[in-house]
Amino acid sequence: MPSSITLAVSTVIFALRPHPETRHPVLWLPLVRRVRSPHKGLWALPGGPLGTTEDLAASARRNLHETTHLTPRYLEQLYAFGRPDRSEDRTVSIVYWALVRPDVASEGVETENVRWFLADSLPELAFDHSQIVEYALWRLRNKMEYSRIATALLGETFTLSDLREVHEAVLERRLDPANFRRQVESTGEVVPTDEFRTGGRHRPARLYRHNHSIELADNGPLTGR
Amino acid sequence: MPSSITLAVSTVIFALRPHPETRHPVLWLPLVRRVRSPHKGLWALPGGPLGTTEDLAASARRNLHETTHLTPRYLEQLYAFGRPDRSEDRTVSIVYWALVRPDVASEGVETENVRWFLADSLPELAFDHSQIVEYALWRLRNKMEYSRIATALLGETFTLSDLREVHEAVLERRLDPANFRRQVESTGEVVPTDEFRTGGRHRPARLYRHNHSIELADNGPLTGR
Repeated sequence: MPSSITLAVSTVIFALRPHPETRHPVLWLPLVRRVRSPHKGLWALPGGPLGTTEDLAASARRNLHETTHLTPRYLEQLYAFGRPDRSEDRTVSIVYWALVRPDVASEGVETENVRWFLADSLPELAFDHSQIVEYALWRLRNKMEYSRIATALLGETFTLSDLREVHEAVLERRLDPANFRRQVESTGEVVPTDEFRTGGRHRPARLYRHNHSIELADNGPLTGR
Repeated sequence: MPSSITLAVSTVIFALRPHPETRHPVLWLPLVRRVRSPHKGLWALPGGPLGTTEDLAASARRNLHETTHLTPRYLEQLYAFGRPDRSEDRTVSIVYWALVRPDVASEGVETENVRWFLADSLPELAFDHSQIVEYALWRLRNKMEYSRIATALLGETFTLSDLREVHEAVLERRLDPANFRRQVESTGEVVPTDEFRTGGRHRPARLYRHNHSIELADNGPLTGR
């Protein structure tokens, strides 16, 4: 049966970068300014039509790379949005969410029509993209219990303070350092390395990495697809 | 941009009915025999193309009703499946999963091309539908902690034994009745009524209902849509 429905794939991309004033790490995401009607001039999630021979996740990766020159550390299907009134043409959007690393994100290209925004102070977005971002933030907060989600926002190694700052940035509340350390150590999801970070006014802090033997839950039914 | 991709909505429908031999409640699901190529003659999930002015969940409800004459007690988006090689034509399927009540399911119409199967002994299915059912079962098992999921498989009121049997059927293992009672009572997710079920060799058993004041988690980002 022929269909006049367009199928698009969009991605909500999160990275942790310092707040411009407090310098605390906070969540940012890149948006693309629409250069065509409808919603011309408004900011929107990176995305585009699904290629006829393209896998959904591959389409998300491609759009993400074309827009931001980035490769995600974590990529998961978020939800399919299909209300008939969500756009003027009839478009169903399958949305992914992605995490990228800050050092990589810092190299992300900003142009006139691609810009990074603070996740908690976004401009008006095109279509239902504001609701989509809100839902992606909700999903991210609910997944923070898997520390591999948190480590996808960090480098290969990190201190427990780095890891706590990620949780604080995502959950938007302060956490007690001693309690946090106990909780993290009890899960076995991160493991200590033999290395330390030195410098600054603090004593050397041990570096950790995530435990590769623990799989992420629910990254879709078909592994690697 | 015109697209030659077909968008379909399919649904994995679960109900609890007695096993034909043991009479213990177990999971069943209805399948539809394909009357057209490709995969003609194989059993498949109920579904069909998305209507051009139709919401995704509405499409799932419509297909579910047309196939089985049932209305779901619980309906949630499962995942969008889009591998280019998953069907001979290029079809992306947005799949929902649904729970229906056994008394209602018993009235479900069986015809030559619609039949209920035991979830753990399905025939060969068309396309990637076997993998989709496996993933839906995984999701169901992971959601059993929310007792409203379990109560969607039961009637308005039920005994704690009924509720334990649902958990046992879904999780496929026996649970200790006393521990189960303590766990359920501690969550507050079901509340006792003033009614009892009498009859049989057992003493009267108190009837419970689910606590309407507790919301289900994650039933999609846009409530009621």
